[in-house]
Amino acid sequence: MPKLLYAPASPYSAKIRMAAALHSLKLELQTVSTSDEPDALTSENPLGKIPTLICDDSFAVFDSRAIMQELDRLSGKKLFPRNAEKRREAERLEAAADGLCDALLTQVYERRMRPAEKVHGEWLDYQARKVTRMLDWLNENSGRVSKSPHGGHLALYAALGYADLRFPDLNWSRGRPKLKRLVARLETVFPEITQFRPA
Amino acid sequence: MPKLLYAPASPYSAKIRMAAALHSLKLELQTVSTSDEPDALTSENPLGKIPTLICDDSFAVFDSRAIMQELDRLSGKKLFPRNAEKRREAERLEAAADGLCDALLTQVYERRMRPAEKVHGEWLDYQARKVTRMLDWLNENSGRVSKSPHGGHLALYAALGYADLRFPDLNWSRGRPKLKRLVARLETVFPEITQFRPA
Repeated sequence: MPKLLYAPASPYSAKIRMAAALHSLKLELQTVSTSDEPDALTSENPLGKIPTLICDDSFAVFDSRAIMQELDRLSGKKLFPRNAEKRREAERLEAAADGLCDALLTQVYERRMRPAEKVHGEWLDYQARKVTRMLDWLNENSGRVSKSPHGGHLALYAALGYADLRFPDLNWSRGRPKLKRLVARLETVFPEITQFRPA
Repeated sequence: MPKLLYAPASPYSAKIRMAAALHSLKLELQTVSTSDEPDALTSENPLGKIPTLICDDSFAVFDSRAIMQELDRLSGKKLFPRNAEKRREAERLEAAADGLCDALLTQVYERRMRPAEKVHGEWLDYQARKVTRMLDWLNENSGRVSKSPHGGHLALYAALGYADLRFPDLNWSRGRPKLKRLVARLETVFPEITQFRPA
């Protein structure tokens, strides 16, 4: 069984767990604390990042984007649309959601990884502008969810779950009704998804 | 003709230009300064990042990973191997090279985007350890280049070019003979690649 090195709060890891659950791919789970830079992680992924997936043949796949492509193959090409235009849109949505996470995480790390006097407000503001622009864009550009979500939808759900976890005051759904409806739709067609919210 | 919003120093942009050149896909080029957060960029990519590719049907593709998947389709599936195991390895190599760039760029941004008294040495050291580990890993895990490079090789060449540009003292090739030979091999099989080094 493939083994996933992950952390419960990591949105990129949550996306992988959702994708595996959606397509009935069983994963062995192992939590890792990246800030400790443990050998068990860095020997597999020298960047020391999660998620990292150890496949059945011991080949370690990273980062989360490459893992999603691998899960697409393992699922029999069900995680992303086969049609080229739809796949392009799904992969862009995944990139957009991951980019949203990057801008959120950069703010978390700015506060967590340095003493208070070295926190740079302009840098936080620069990242916050990316977040606002991206949320507005996602409200208009996330598309519809048919009977089964694709990889981009899962990434979006994970990113918004991370926003809820770390930035509750952001209140991303306020003024973004389409995005709110899309999340409700995802929970309707794939109820299990709520189990994998970043926590 | 698809239009690429890019910057000459961006390794992620360099990778895209190499891939397009390798497979004779013509791109219109437009330089963008991301720090200005220009509307022409943020209206297409709300993250305000490059590269962003505007396709012939006006659909904007980002980030560089999604663009590479799109170029793979536009090239007739020639940018990445078709064999599943080889494709997994190529996509991981791209992720590894991009992750190396991330760790380098984080250091550049730490010095560029805040006043000197807010630069945090421990954060720079944390990123530098990722770089060292990744370079050592790449020396052992970059595989061989047959008659044509794949997307992972291009990402690697772009990342090492960025290291040369911004971190000449890093001297990445010292003690990493396999990596040095791989770069020489890439320049032999695809001489045009040198034109797209980050600059």
